[in-house]
Amino acid sequence: MTQSLPVTPDLIRAAARRIAPHIRRTPLLRLGGGDLGLPHPIILKLELLQASGSFKPRGAFNTILSAREDGRLPAAGVIAASGGNHGAAVAYAARALGVPAEIFVPEITGPAKRARIESYGARLVVGGAAYDEARQASERRAAETGALPVHAYDQDSVLAGQGTVAQELAEDAPGLTHVLVATGGGGLIGGMAGWYAGSGVGVVSVEPEGCPTLATALREGRPVPAPVGGLAADSLGARQVGALMFAVARDHVAAAVLVPDAAIRAAQALLWEAARVAAEPGGATALAALLCGAWVAPAGAEVGVLVCGGNCPPGSVTG
Amino acid sequence: MTQSLPVTPDLIRAAARRIAPHIRRTPLLRLGGGDLGLPHPIILKLELLQASGSFKPRGAFNTILSAREDGRLPAAGVIAASGGNHGAAVAYAARALGVPAEIFVPEITGPAKRARIESYGARLVVGGAAYDEARQASERRAAETGALPVHAYDQDSVLAGQGTVAQELAEDAPGLTHVLVATGGGGLIGGMAGWYAGSGVGVVSVEPEGCPTLATALREGRPVPAPVGGLAADSLGARQVGALMFAVARDHVAAAVLVPDAAIRAAQALLWEAARVAAEPGGATALAALLCGAWVAPAGAEVGVLVCGGNCPPGSVTG
Repeated sequence: MTQSLPVTPDLIRAAARRIAPHIRRTPLLRLGGGDLGLPHPIILKLELLQASGSFKPRGAFNTILSAREDGRLPAAGVIAASGGNHGAAVAYAARALGVPAEIFVPEITGPAKRARIESYGARLVVGGAAYDEARQASERRAAETGALPVHAYDQDSVLAGQGTVAQELAEDAPGLTHVLVATGGGGLIGGMAGWYAGSGVGVVSVEPEGCPTLATALREGRPVPAPVGGLAADSLGARQVGALMFAVARDHVAAAVLVPDAAIRAAQALLWEAARVAAEPGGATALAALLCGAWVAPAGAEVGVLVCGGNCPPGSVTG
Repeated sequence: MTQSLPVTPDLIRAAARRIAPHIRRTPLLRLGGGDLGLPHPIILKLELLQASGSFKPRGAFNTILSAREDGRLPAAGVIAASGGNHGAAVAYAARALGVPAEIFVPEITGPAKRARIESYGARLVVGGAAYDEARQASERRAAETGALPVHAYDQDSVLAGQGTVAQELAEDAPGLTHVLVATGGGGLIGGMAGWYAGSGVGVVSVEPEGCPTLATALREGRPVPAPVGGLAADSLGARQVGALMFAVARDHVAAAVLVPDAAIRAAQALLWEAARVAAEPGGATALAALLCGAWVAPAGAEVGVLVCGGNCPPGSVTG
């Protein structure tokens, strides 16, 4: 069954070999249930400690390095549209590989995020009022320059790169029965579900009620636009999930649950209070499902929870 | 040589077995030199992710559990004097073990730290204007109640408990040649130097210029009072190092260097910027030695750096 998927364990293993010199193998932290007010322990994968503060460099490095291997990397370098974690990650990866990068951001992107992208040496372009305009501007620019677009989620090489999170987790915590992952555009959970497909490990999607892209797509049977709003919209607020991830998720995501912003805020505060982990709202969203009961572990489950990003003002994590 | 030390690998292994059900095995994070502006990579041990936000529960659990094993744990429970990490850790350990605890704090202890100690179920007593008065009040109270005192650093069982940090580090990063550790009263570095004694691994003490307890003691040939001040005084500001740790440190600490507060602040900001690690000033002090050149790694060194605590307002880590 997995042979027909756009992301497979073999593709993920190849990505992992490709990106290994450039990304961090992020650590796990086992927490007792008592520290969290839960009836069972959990294993956190601390992907917020990744370079640039989120999992996104995995897909960015895999995309750029794959193109270079195949002789498809243009002299114009790479181009991306994102005011958030993806833009920072593409800028970080491009700098590490000595490749020019242009990052198109919308006007709403704040000065801290702009400064971070520029600190990595990328050329930052304000491409319009909102994300869609920035994306369109980046596409026009790519057509002019020939630069390689790095998509935030809907690209084979991105899915395989993000899937390396699952490979590390499976190697370091082989006993897990369930893995909780936050979903935005779905590149991360798509890649991870591609790794775990057929393994018996249940990959659970968690989304804010304010931006339910995968839950909506699964209900409709195809990727469709969903509302974008709420506390975690800056990292999880894609308009809809990617077509590639959906081909994986419809059969290989065990459940897709929604959580209110209050649970996300509580998860941020608890991660800080119990473990000094400073997650951004999107990074705390997977844990929120356990706190509010949106997903309840079956008896005997061993539960992994991905903390996928930490790009927020540190003072904002205590609620 | 190590047979005559107050803390040995055998005592540390016994402590590790005793406390294993109660403490977290804290993870490592490998960072490339490029991410830090250093000529070499480093391995961080993220002990700030320990329960209660610092390494201190290791010694507290070992002390209480050792007393219970030996039939020395009184019905009155345990008592400690500290407005900081040690007080929180003793309260945390006592709650986990179902033992009553009284924590004496000075008036200067802020409301957040008082709330944390009380959140762990301990009885909090304001014992005077400054730390010495709180300590004396706790000693009078212990004489009345018979409660077991848990010292912040100068106790065999505390040294062996803190030494378990080194055992984990040696198991998880066997190739290290040097380990940088911040020193206050010296319980942590004393325990760690007891583990590494005779191993060839250089244990390097890093202290703020504002509270140079070990550097002063090594110069004078015995523990003597040192100034207490500066950015990290709330966690590293012991008046002098313990007698027990000094018996280890005089032969088994490879170097004792001092760093200015500006380097500590820069290390906090860099840990956040490069790795989303939110260290308190004392927790960032060991890294500061590399940033300011107070200690320079010899060619070919593999350097471990302990991040020993994260109990500060999260918004304060970005400088």
